[in-house]
Formats: sequence, C-alpha cells, structure tokens
Amino acid sequence: MLVIGERINSTRKAIRKAILDRDADCIRKEAQRQVEAGADYIDANAGIEPEREPDDLVWLTETIQSAVDCPVSLDTASPDAMKAALGVHKGTPMINSITGEEGRHETVLPLADEHDARLVALTMGRAGMPRTVEDRMEAARGVADLISGQGIGLDRVYFDPVLCSVATESEAGQIALETVSRLRDEFPDAHITCGLSNISFGLPQRNVLNRNALAMLMAAGLDSAIIDPTEPHMMSAVRAAEALLGQDDFCMNYITAARGGELD
Amino acid sequence: MLVIGERINSTRKAIRKAILDRDADCIRKEAQRQVEAGADYIDANAGIEPEREPDDLVWLTETIQSAVDCPVSLDTASPDAMKAALGVHKGTPMINSITGEEGRHETVLPLADEHDARLVALTMGRAGMPRTVEDRMEAARGVADLISGQGIGLDRVYFDPVLCSVATESEAGQIALETVSRLRDEFPDAHITCGLSNISFGLPQRNVLNRNALAMLMAAGLDSAIIDPTEPHMMSAVRAAEALLGQDDFCMNYITAARGGELD
Repeated sequence: MLVIGERINSTRKAIRKAILDRDADCIRKEAQRQVEAGADYIDANAGIEPEREPDDLVWLTETIQSAVDCPVSLDTASPDAMKAALGVHKGTPMINSITGEEGRHETVLPLADEHDARLVALTMGRAGMPRTVEDRMEAARGVADLISGQGIGLDRVYFDPVLCSVATESEAGQIALETVSRLRDEFPDAHITCGLSNISFGLPQRNVLNRNALAMLMAAGLDSAIIDPTEPHMMSAVRAAEALLGQDDFCMNYITAARGGELD
Repeated sequence: MLVIGERINSTRKAIRKAILDRDADCIRKEAQRQVEAGADYIDANAGIEPEREPDDLVWLTETIQSAVDCPVSLDTASPDAMKAALGVHKGTPMINSITGEEGRHETVLPLADEHDARLVALTMGRAGMPRTVEDRMEAARGVADLISGQGIGLDRVYFDPVLCSVATESEAGQIALETVSRLRDEFPDAHITCGLSNISFGLPQRNVLNRNALAMLMAAGLDSAIIDPTEPHMMSAVRAAEALLGQDDFCMNYITAARGGELD
C-alpha cells in the first residue's frame, strides 16, 4: 500500500499561512509527522494564487525534502508550477494529477516522461465530472491511451476513481468499489489510488467513514490512497487490510506495528 | 445488517460460572449490554457438559428473554438441547448451526421447520473442514439442498463461510471475501453471516483485524455477523459500512448514531 500524506495543502488555513510566511518549521513538522505515521509520499499543494504558485510549490517541495527522505506528490493544475517543482524535486516525483480533459494533459505528459514521474490519473474525461462506473471506465481508457501514447508505462499510473460523497449520492460508495474492482481487472499493471475523504464530505465523524471505506476499497483492489495518515485508526486500517488480504507475509508488518504500539 | 451478539458463550469463564451458579443477573446484564450496543439476536451457548446442556440452554434462553425483547441464537450441536430450548423460546429463533455433515442435520432440520426458525448453515459438508472457496461452495450447495428438501425457504438461511485465521493461512481473508461474494451471487435469497473473530485468532489486537474484516466482508455481501457488539469501533464499522454501501437511506442511521455519541 502506497500512502500519500495529504496534510500539506493550502486549503488548510495553517498551511496557507505557513506558505505565505515561508514558515519552513511548520512544513517540516507536518512532513515528519506524516512520514512517521506511515506516508510514502508527501502531497504538496500550494494553490493560493496562480502567479505565485510556481515559487510557492518550489519552496514547499524543497522544504519538505529538507526534512524527510521522501518523494513529493506535486498537487497542482498549473503546468508552470508543475514544471518548476519537478526541476527541484529529488527522487521519483508523483504528478497529481492529470485527466483526459483537453488543456490539462498536453503539457504535463511530456514533463512526466522527462522526469520519470508517477502519475495520478483521474478517471475524468472531456465530459468532466463522471457520474456512473461506465463514465469512469471510459475516462480511464481515454487517459490510459494518452499516457501510452506518450510512451509511459501503465505501471507508473495511479488511477483515481473520483470519489463522491455518500451524503449527496447514496450509491457513491458502491460506484467507488465497483470502479476500483473494474480498474483492477482491466488495467492489471496500473495502480489505483483515491482522494479518500471525499466519500464522507458533509457527514459527521468523517474518520469513521474514511477508515472503513479504505479497508473496503483495498479489498476491491486499491493499492494506494491519498489520506491523512495521522488520523486516528487510519494506518491501523491499512495494516489490518494488508494482513487480511495476504499482502503481509506471516502478518509480520501487522505484528510489528502492534508490538510497536502503532495500532489504535 | 443483522447483528448476533456472541458474548453469552460458556467458553468464557465468567459465563460458564454464571451458568453453573444460575447467576441470572450476570446473564441479563450481558444480554442488555449487547442489545444496547446494537445486537438483533443474542447468541446463547451452554455447552459445558452434554448431560446438563438441555437444562442449561433452557435456563439461558429464558433468562435472556426475561431481560431483553430479543430473539436468541441457540448455539449448540446437541439436538436435545436445541429441542428443549426451542420449546421455551419466544419469537423467531435462530438455530446455530447446521452443516451438511451426516448426523447433524437429520434431527435439526425438522425442528427448524416446526419452529419457523432461522438457520445458520456452515459451508461444511461431509468432508469436514473446508479448505478452498470451491469446497465451501460445494458444501453450501449440499446444505441448501437439504434445507430445501425440508421445505424451508433459503430466505431463512444464514450461510457462514467458515473463516480461518490469517495468522496460519495467509489466504484466509481472500478466501472469506471470495466465498461471501460467490454465495451472494449464487444464493441471492439467502443471508450470509460469519463467526467473525476466527479470522484474527492468534494475532495481537484482534479487534483491529475484526472490525476491518467486517467492513470488507460487508462490501462483499455479508448481511449479518456473529460478533461482540460491545467491542470498540465494531458497531461503528457496521454503521459506516451500511452508509457506504447504500443500505442507510440518506445516511440517517449513521447521522443518528453520530449525534447519539454512539460512534467511536
């Protein structure tokens, strides 16, 4: 399971302030906390204002990598910010994200190729926000074609099935599960991730829904997630699901986590 | 989701003592705690000594039903104890369990028919303990034939896929998930339950595995479970999974549980 830690996001007030103030200490601590909790990638979103986003994302990337030995998921819709941050990133970057929408992939795919990046590919095509499982599968096929056309292997792709909230759409959970299951069947070489917390938007005690959705989606084939690994019980769900799905030889990671007092 | 509370089981020291001492107060409290936590059935296991089991199970059944307005899952391999307890039970009893093994179903199926009971049917046939998914499906077909032969509808049947521990068999979780999924497809009218905690036998912090396995199995089609509903986070997993699977209109049960301080 590849865990992408989502906490360094400019939509959070404290992070926005840290970016504006160039408060490296705050960002470093957020990065360290997430790596200690189990993050494999640190997501970095610096989307405050378009004109300053390239500088902000470069600063964020450098600051994170000065604190932790961990690659960064560059979370921006701006090709300029992506290009600038890729220029300073160490290791294998994650591009978060591309879609099949026009105007989004043309500049980013060549960058992904040049930097040997991993790619989060939203199952969203020209028609915009998908509604059904089939919408998502069609969009996945479209974006897979674009990626293959660039000569990038699908083993570097992390499909994101674009979760909606069960608060507004009662079938959102089933759609997510079925999309993951079908992506797993149709693209066996690709990875599947998701912005998990969308599923609980608008509901109370979102962590209860998030952590249970994570275990369920892992059973369907999810092998990565964009989550807050410091949330209570979240990494316990990951370790438990790995053990339950035969992804943890002799349950050794699970047992080690239990002995280390890491399970809650 | 139909929750069968498992705490009143004579393999637990305190329960064994309560049965031997006829400590009705202890049993009543155990029943009440489980119903308050969300149990729909209370499992009653009085298997201390064969010769006293009919009396013990009758006492247990009457004691439970004097405390809670809730039917009982009569958990015994003894036809005599089953017959005696069915004689005093109020409401729709659950017979826990029958298998396709010879000598087990011949006396119990006519009792199930006579008392309009629900039936836990282990996916275990003449060959004994199943190993593969296919072993379990064959056993399920065999026991379904026996039940249908008695004129009992499959809508009263709760198949139990016989969970093994992931500590001793790394594929045990996947086998459980696939069996549930295939039972759901092949027997759309039947219910699926399981003795959940077997999956974590021999491992530390079993609750972490149990509650995550429950959410995963519900996504595969499980609609009942034999669990301890007072375990931390267990009923939260049930309420979350129901909301995530579209089994909770407008997430109202989930929201009500959250407002009532019931989610942890």
